[in-house]
Amino acid sequence: MAESYRIAIAGLGTVGAGVVEILQNNADLIACRAGRKVEIVAVSARDKNRDRGVDLSSYNWVDNAADLAGQDVDAVVELIGGSEGAALDLAQAALGQGKDVVTANKALVAHHGATLAATAEEKNAHLAYEAAVAGGVPIIKALREGLAANNVRGVYGILNGTCNYILTEMRETGADFSDVLKDAQEKGYAEADPAFDIEGVDAGHKLAILTAIAFGVKPDFEAMDIRGITEITSTDIKFSREFGYRIKLLGIARSYDGRISQTVEPCLVPKNSPLGAIEGVLNAVEVDGDFVGKPMLTGFGAGKGATASSVVADIIDLARGLDVPTFGVPSKDLSDYQAMDMGETTGSFYVRLNVLDQPGVIADVSAILRDQNVSIESLSQHGRDPGQPVPIVMTTHEVRHADLVGACEKIENLEHVQEKPCMLRIIEL
Amino acid sequence: MAESYRIAIAGLGTVGAGVVEILQNNADLIACRAGRKVEIVAVSARDKNRDRGVDLSSYNWVDNAADLAGQDVDAVVELIGGSEGAALDLAQAALGQGKDVVTANKALVAHHGATLAATAEEKNAHLAYEAAVAGGVPIIKALREGLAANNVRGVYGILNGTCNYILTEMRETGADFSDVLKDAQEKGYAEADPAFDIEGVDAGHKLAILTAIAFGVKPDFEAMDIRGITEITSTDIKFSREFGYRIKLLGIARSYDGRISQTVEPCLVPKNSPLGAIEGVLNAVEVDGDFVGKPMLTGFGAGKGATASSVVADIIDLARGLDVPTFGVPSKDLSDYQAMDMGETTGSFYVRLNVLDQPGVIADVSAILRDQNVSIESLSQHGRDPGQPVPIVMTTHEVRHADLVGACEKIENLEHVQEKPCMLRIIEL
Repeated sequence: MAESYRIAIAGLGTVGAGVVEILQNNADLIACRAGRKVEIVAVSARDKNRDRGVDLSSYNWVDNAADLAGQDVDAVVELIGGSEGAALDLAQAALGQGKDVVTANKALVAHHGATLAATAEEKNAHLAYEAAVAGGVPIIKALREGLAANNVRGVYGILNGTCNYILTEMRETGADFSDVLKDAQEKGYAEADPAFDIEGVDAGHKLAILTAIAFGVKPDFEAMDIRGITEITSTDIKFSREFGYRIKLLGIARSYDGRISQTVEPCLVPKNSPLGAIEGVLNAVEVDGDFVGKPMLTGFGAGKGATASSVVADIIDLARGLDVPTFGVPSKDLSDYQAMDMGETTGSFYVRLNVLDQPGVIADVSAILRDQNVSIESLSQHGRDPGQPVPIVMTTHEVRHADLVGACEKIENLEHVQEKPCMLRIIEL
Repeated sequence: MAESYRIAIAGLGTVGAGVVEILQNNADLIACRAGRKVEIVAVSARDKNRDRGVDLSSYNWVDNAADLAGQDVDAVVELIGGSEGAALDLAQAALGQGKDVVTANKALVAHHGATLAATAEEKNAHLAYEAAVAGGVPIIKALREGLAANNVRGVYGILNGTCNYILTEMRETGADFSDVLKDAQEKGYAEADPAFDIEGVDAGHKLAILTAIAFGVKPDFEAMDIRGITEITSTDIKFSREFGYRIKLLGIARSYDGRISQTVEPCLVPKNSPLGAIEGVLNAVEVDGDFVGKPMLTGFGAGKGATASSVVADIIDLARGLDVPTFGVPSKDLSDYQAMDMGETTGSFYVRLNVLDQPGVIADVSAILRDQNVSIESLSQHGRDPGQPVPIVMTTHEVRHADLVGACEKIENLEHVQEKPCMLRIIEL
């Protein structure tokens, strides 16, 4: 058997401890699959004395993570987190010295992936990040290698388990967003500061990475339109169910003759579709390829075991000598991201209005929609409450996005309309 | 860019024509992803004059497929089919000459995979077969590489689209097996001779391959227990729905401390489970790993584009230099398959009896079950028809398989029982 593949691990939080646990528990199996032993040489974390449930006594403890790049190792496993600072410094230093870098850090790859990939290639090293998207689900490998024969038309992902859990609970209990969020925090499914998750930033980081692989472009998180789930009400949940849909926070990347749209937004998907059936904390990614159709991968998107499983899969790949360009094509062939003008895209939408229950309101709304070329597929108002605010909900036929946005702006200015209309995209998969 | 990766294609049926089409349509993309051009050098099929919808004029036509192994190529793509004869001869000859072999041929790999893998390793060549299992779904790569960190506990697959289509239609229409089969044949979802599909042989071939990768054993199709869907009645469909389940033909491989069970059998799965939601011609595979949880992959398991997508993905991998042992571990490390005694396994089951509607029948049946340590979870008889045969259906709590088989044998011998009881495994995923 070849020499050991020597690694250093930076960051010993939940995922870091999980990586150590897998490498210890499944050592023989992993050596057999990798064709060589994987050996942990050094580890680094903030607090040396914390009990992490794994025996670290045989590894060098390095106080400063930055020093791991200088160790006699083949790879540095970066599990510090954050797009800048220590994680970025370490990844750059390690790649710069020709060492492989394995990371679960979506923010790092979304923001600096193109630069890091270029360094890796130049130094004949590798940047591996399977764990950065959809946790234990091997979507990076599936998209980059398993579906490589296809010209990808679109990628649709449920990429944040916290949001999917909240939306599932809202539907099952009828409760409002804020109550379900609180419950999710108590159960450990949402962070104390949930902004990154519920505002769509975490899903955006993951989508930027998938977009890069799917379309051969540099990851460009800045170019993305991101909307979270904070504005979704129990009314939206109720009406979408009535129309046969479920609300899911989707990361969507689509190609239009070389231009690309990238959005994270709550969407209505048919409840019996493969993505519609993904519930709770699960993640899922559906890929639309020109030959393969629409395969989908699903599984746990977070958590110790699932995320560590993907980190270790990357380590095995690298130990075995896998040599695939970071984003599927050589760095020099990655295009700059050319954004599609969203206003020019078409689709069907769900629109919720909050209006005073007065005669004539629907007539006014209908006239605006007609003038903006928006054709209504269905319209629903439950109950009556004269003079009080009531929700009116409709779904449209296929419309030009800009036309509907224009209509909503005009509707918002109507006298009896109480707030900005809520528009949600309908995705029929 | 490196020299072209030169291939010869044997067999130009639906999948073969699809492979040519992808390599022509997506040539630039594929060259970029493979790091070199993929060049079709020679092709072979039975009928030179048939129109296959693709331009073959620039490739050498070779009348005898066996001669492709001697061409100046890097790989032979075997799409002839069948576990013996021309396909086997060509694969052996090509690997023997150190050429890579890419195949969609599940029977070939299930029957001769271990021998071919050994030849490949010895000659520093590769046997690639992503298309052999679940068509366009990259499950081979996902299981062999993406989930390689895990000690796999089980694999559960909906591996035959024809069977899944028939079972879905039976549930949706209430029609009997034979009527739905006829309809499926007219629509092209079932072959004129459907035996391979409906009797579970095709699913068995695929399962033997998944078992090999999951547990590091030589594929052993002969050792498998296989039951098709021909005995499933509209009564089973109706009762399973009533209990909250759907019937799916599953390939199941599980590990019990080194011993393995491998079965293809119709099972009840919860209708809201990920596998339960897989409908129509789709395939799906769920993998139970010790760290990752239970990720699932789904998509089209057959058809021109999907199958060809996986063939070309293998070609790209090999052109790029992927070097993974055929079944995930070196040939010499593959164990012989050690079968678990199915009688010693435990599980819960659905049992349908056909009995004469007479007082005392249920008492007799219950007494036998009690004496065999079988505990009933639910029992259902719809309607009454004194003196006539009626179905009685029950589900059991967890039982030892051999105990239930013993009980069913005794029940079959009761005076008022009309036929052999139908036992179906319940899989809670």
